[in-house]
Amino acid sequence: MDPVAEVDVEHEKAVAARAAAALVEDGMTVGLGTGSTVAHLLDALAVRGVAARYVATSPRTEERARSLGLAVEPFGSHEHFDVAIDGADQVVPEGWLVKGGGAAHTREKVVAATADRFVVIVDSTKPVPALRPPVPLELLAFGTASTLRRLAAVGPVRVRPGAGPSPDGGVICDYLGAVEDPGALAGALGSVPGVVEHGLFPPGLVADVVIGRGDGVEWRRVAGPG
Amino acid sequence: MDPVAEVDVEHEKAVAARAAAALVEDGMTVGLGTGSTVAHLLDALAVRGVAARYVATSPRTEERARSLGLAVEPFGSHEHFDVAIDGADQVVPEGWLVKGGGAAHTREKVVAATADRFVVIVDSTKPVPALRPPVPLELLAFGTASTLRRLAAVGPVRVRPGAGPSPDGGVICDYLGAVEDPGALAGALGSVPGVVEHGLFPPGLVADVVIGRGDGVEWRRVAGPG
Repeated sequence: MDPVAEVDVEHEKAVAARAAAALVEDGMTVGLGTGSTVAHLLDALAVRGVAARYVATSPRTEERARSLGLAVEPFGSHEHFDVAIDGADQVVPEGWLVKGGGAAHTREKVVAATADRFVVIVDSTKPVPALRPPVPLELLAFGTASTLRRLAAVGPVRVRPGAGPSPDGGVICDYLGAVEDPGALAGALGSVPGVVEHGLFPPGLVADVVIGRGDGVEWRRVAGPG
Repeated sequence: MDPVAEVDVEHEKAVAARAAAALVEDGMTVGLGTGSTVAHLLDALAVRGVAARYVATSPRTEERARSLGLAVEPFGSHEHFDVAIDGADQVVPEGWLVKGGGAAHTREKVVAATADRFVVIVDSTKPVPALRPPVPLELLAFGTASTLRRLAAVGPVRVRPGAGPSPDGGVICDYLGAVEDPGALAGALGSVPGVVEHGLFPPGLVADVVIGRGDGVEWRRVAGPG
């Protein structure tokens, strides 16, 4: 390992996670994403020790949060969260994200849309100049073979090897074609019957992107279309 | 009851169902919809007695079909059906449908999209000059209260009283706002995170609309955009 060239991504994830955890205050309701960066977030929230109420996007996050003493509750009748914090697989300057490497993008998108402020935390390898494949997809289990056949008109899609069903029973796949126009691709993927949700998150969902860079953070405010 | 003014919708459903059942031949794979008109279709298929293979869109259809001796199998690895036959709540001359009064529109849309030829069977009360509410919706159970709140930006939506979960665990709702431009409404509803599927079926899915009128049928070929 070359200490000069190598980025310590775990350290950067932790730095970004701690910066975002500082936004959480007593009495807030907070949506929690899923993945390795969110694991650092949960640690930081446990250290911070504020009296917030948490809703998790996956059993994995829920179990870890509970084990750290965070007050996790069901989504239930929540109509708003004060904030939601989650990682991302890719982020471009315009604010588009690709999410779903953790197979939880459907619930993550609902939680992001529920939040008054959705904050994305990433290490410095996640910002990219342009989105690229894979783009995660969740398909209805009913008729998956047919949905995959029809998706081929949009681009190549494969079932993710080793991925179990989503928490809602869907089949996790990856779109492997080009991502030239994210909005057009989102429309094309989303309009195929049998597609439950895709992993393209539009800028309108995103309030902040917090990027760990070495020991510091770059904090991007995203001007979403509303 | 005025025998002149009253339309015998059950008779018309049966007439349309028998006409469509005549399309089914030995060796075909056939998608079966859900609802009261499909109940007549199952009767007609049982009488017809061809050696076809059937895939059902709901437990209700599956049970009734099996009880009539039809060979129902899981969707499984099917990539195409030769034909799918289903009812509709509304149909307009351009070919747009509203479906989902039977709470099965998500699976029905997958089956329709899988069919080389999707045939819609209705009585003479279902053709309308323009689509109107309600438009059925299936929402992810996770975060329903939030999804309903966000859908309010599109128009009024309520959870359907008495409707249990869909076969895929979703919450059945109805959009009760205006339906001026079906394509625009489909896009708006479909892009809200937490919406699994809406009941607007575009003309591109529909090959034929068979309308029972008295003792006869009006057979409309729909020129879908492809």
